Formats: sequence, C-alpha cells, structure tokens
Amino acid sequence: MMAASSRSGAADGEHGAAGQAESKKAEAGRRRPRRRDVPGKLIVVEGIDGSGKSTQLLLLEKWLRYNMFEVFRTEWNSSDIVRSITSKGKKKEALTPTTFSLLHATDFADRFERHILPLLHAGYFVLADRYVYTAYARDVTRGCDPAWVRKVYDFAIKPDIAFYFRVPLDTAMDRILSGRPKLKFYEAGADLNLSKDLYESFRIFQHRIVEQYEAMHKRESFVVMDATMPIHEQQMIMRAKVRKLLPKKLKKKTVLEVPEHV
Amino acid sequence: MMAASSRSGAADGEHGAAGQAESKKAEAGRRRPRRRDVPGKLIVVEGIDGSGKSTQLLLLEKWLRYNMFEVFRTEWNSSDIVRSITSKGKKKEALTPTTFSLLHATDFADRFERHILPLLHAGYFVLADRYVYTAYARDVTRGCDPAWVRKVYDFAIKPDIAFYFRVPLDTAMDRILSGRPKLKFYEAGADLNLSKDLYESFRIFQHRIVEQYEAMHKRESFVVMDATMPIHEQQMIMRAKVRKLLPKKLKKKTVLEVPEHV
Repeated sequence: MMAASSRSGAADGEHGAAGQAESKKAEAGRRRPRRRDVPGKLIVVEGIDGSGKSTQLLLLEKWLRYNMFEVFRTEWNSSDIVRSITSKGKKKEALTPTTFSLLHATDFADRFERHILPLLHAGYFVLADRYVYTAYARDVTRGCDPAWVRKVYDFAIKPDIAFYFRVPLDTAMDRILSGRPKLKFYEAGADLNLSKDLYESFRIFQHRIVEQYEAMHKRESFVVMDATMPIHEQQMIMRAKVRKLLPKKLKKKTVLEVPEHV
Repeated sequence: MMAASSRSGAADGEHGAAGQAESKKAEAGRRRPRRRDVPGKLIVVEGIDGSGKSTQLLLLEKWLRYNMFEVFRTEWNSSDIVRSITSKGKKKEALTPTTFSLLHATDFADRFERHILPLLHAGYFVLADRYVYTAYARDVTRGCDPAWVRKVYDFAIKPDIAFYFRVPLDTAMDRILSGRPKLKFYEAGADLNLSKDLYESFRIFQHRIVEQYEAMHKRESFVVMDATMPIHEQQMIMRAKVRKLLPKKLKKKTVLEVPEHV
C-alpha cells in the first residue's frame, strides 16, 4: 500500500512532462492509450501450455505483494460477458477462424477496457497470463491474416515486459498430458483437421503455435526465458527484470527473495 | 429455379477465366474472397431507421423470386450464436465502444461465413439489410478509429450494389417515432451522453450516423436513393440497377413489374 502509492508518485515524477505531452497527442490524434500514459506496469507471460508460465506469474505476484505493490492478475478468456457465448459457440463447433478470432478479441477487449486499463491508470502492476500474442499465434495458425489480427488488437497497450517461455515441445507435452486429460475440441486444434487423433492433433497444433511465437519474438521484444531451468532460477531472472521498471528509490527497497514462511 | 441455374451457368461463362485467375491469386496471397470469385450477387441496403430501406429490400426480394431467382435475405444482428450475448451485454450497459464494435463484428462474421458467403458461392442473390457500412457509421460515431473498424471488417466481400437511402432526418424521425416506441439504451446512442432525453439523444445520434453515411458514400460507391420518392418509383430504379448485373440472356427474360395479384 505504502509502496504502491509512493511508487505511482515516483513514476509520475519520472515520466511527468513526457507523459503529459503524450496524453495530449493521444487525445488529438489517436484515442489508443500508450504505456507512458499510465502509471501502472503491465507484465505479460506467453508460451504454450506446459511451459510453466502460469506458475512463474503466480510467484511474481507473490513477490510483488510481499513488497507491498498493488497487483491485479488476469487470465485469457475470463471475461464474464463473453465467456458464456464463447463456450456455447465452441460446443457447437460452429466457429470459423474469423468468428473464433473476433469472439476472443471481444472477450479480451472487454477485459482490457474494464479491468486492465483502469488498473494501469490507477498505478497497479497488471500481470497478464497470456495477452495479444496468444491471439496472434493461435489465430494465424488457424488461418487468419497476420496483419488483420494485429490490427484487430491494436486497441491494446503494449506491455512493459512480455516474458516468453521457450520450452521443447516434448517437455511441455509431458507436463500437460501426464494425466491424459480429456482434450477439448478447439484446444486440440481439431477444427484444423490436423489428425484424427486428438492428442496428435494437439501436438501438431502446439508445434505450429511455437513456430508463431518464435517468428514474432524479436519483433515484439519478448524477454525469452529458458523454461527448462529450475523454477526458482527463472523467477529470479523475472524479478530482476521487473525491478528495473521501478524508480530508483523503490528499486532499492524491493527485495528479490520472499522469505519461506510467507 | 430454372432461371437460377441458368443464371449461375451464364455467370460462369461471363467471369470464367478471370474468375479462376483471381481465385488462384486469392489462395496464394490473401484468403479473403472477392466478388468475382463467387457466382452469386450481393445487394445491400443502407440508411438510417425510417429511410424505408427494409421495405424496398422486401419488394426487391419479391421481384427476384417472381423472376425465379434464388434469394436469401439477411439482417443485421441476427446471428444465433452471438445474439444472446449481445443483448446480455446491452442490458448490462457495460459495453465500451471497442467491445460494442467487436461484438457486432463477431455477429456479422458468423453470419457472413455461415450464410452469406456459402450462398454467394451457390449462386444466390443475397440481400443484406445493413452491411459493414452500418458498422462503419455506428462505431465511428461511438468513437472507434475509422481505419481500425474498416480493417476489422475487411474479411467481408464487397457488395455488387450498395443502395444508400438518403432521407431528411425529420422525415425519418416522423416515420419511426409516430408510435412513440420505447427506445432502447444503445439504439438511442444513450451511451454517448448526448442528451438526458432518450428521444433527443436518438435524434442527435441519427444525425451523426447520417454524417458518416454522407462522408463515405463516394468512397464506397453507394447508389444514392432519394428516399422521399414514391415507393414504387424507388423500387423501379433499384430493379433496373440490379437487372444490369445479369448476363444478357437473363436480362431480357427478367421483367421489372410484378403483377398485382402475386
């Protein structure tokens, strides 16, 4: 709480004049907000299922809370307003690539405008478990035009850091499928007719998603994480990166390790 | 039926070689279909409520059916898959301009890919009561970026003819509000805070929509209709325009007037 308020104060100081000039330009020319218009910080994790990104994000949240920052964590496809219809459409297996893409974009826009952006304005750390890059990767794999998908999502603010968890496909598959869960139709990419076997379809689909991530990681300035490293080591790298976003005074106060008992 | 099948045959002959070349290019470079890729014809009516466009489209449908063409008429916001959530979101009055826009785009995409495009491929006359231009006008009025909205909808095929029904605002308002219906929140543009009075808000909103139509009619090559003309006269203009789309042999067979008793 204390840290949170002094942080946003300090952030104001840091970006103050530039931030105001940006805001004015934003009002005149374009309505889309930019990172510098908001005092909060947006941290994103991306990677295929089984890359360990959600575990890492939870540890990051724990650490930020321990250091008294205000944190909001948000997941892909979790908007109330659209969830019902997305699953309804998915059940019917009646979605085309374009409707699939637009449904998820609507869901994301709802979440972005009602939660993510207001909380960034309020100075929060917003932690996003998947962000627009998940849409880029999936929708393009499904056959949507890459430039179109990027344009659809260009209402979204660029994150301060996007961590990409790079993991060998076999490692990720082992982690997910060790329990042999029942795969869902779209989750397995079964709409793409990749294989009659759902698990094989899932594997091919995940492989193509990885290709998309690898193709975009430079352009999108991902911080590439070696997701085969021990959990704690990965977390320390992330914390150090995130700490760099803080103004000097707060950076010193923010400890990297959280005591075991917390 | 007879006319319908011979028409699509004739259309094949007319566009044959060029159409195939286009298709090939479409596969290689872009996935979006073009008008020439499909044997069917897409006719659109646009204009504010009370402009008489729906009446005219029904008369056009009657005429085409009388001349034995296969016809499919489709309305804005009528997709099963998305209707429930759109009205749910509308009830909550929780939609931002972006989510409002994307919800309608999803609805439209669903309808376009499941009905409009397949029927155009099957050689139908598809009659659309409002098309992407309604989205352009409304979403931009609500504050969305014009280039963004156009990009979102660029999966949609260009219509063969888009009729725009130009009508003085007072005439349209009189036609709609003569029964003083209960206006809905979004219908009246009440989310834009134009006026505390719903009817006044509706009026200002419609005025802005008209401005958008007027701003786009040249670029989009609308056929501008004087919607104050007698119904029958307007209809004759429309039929003559649509008849021009037919191959020569069919053009001759297609009578403009439908006998009274039909």
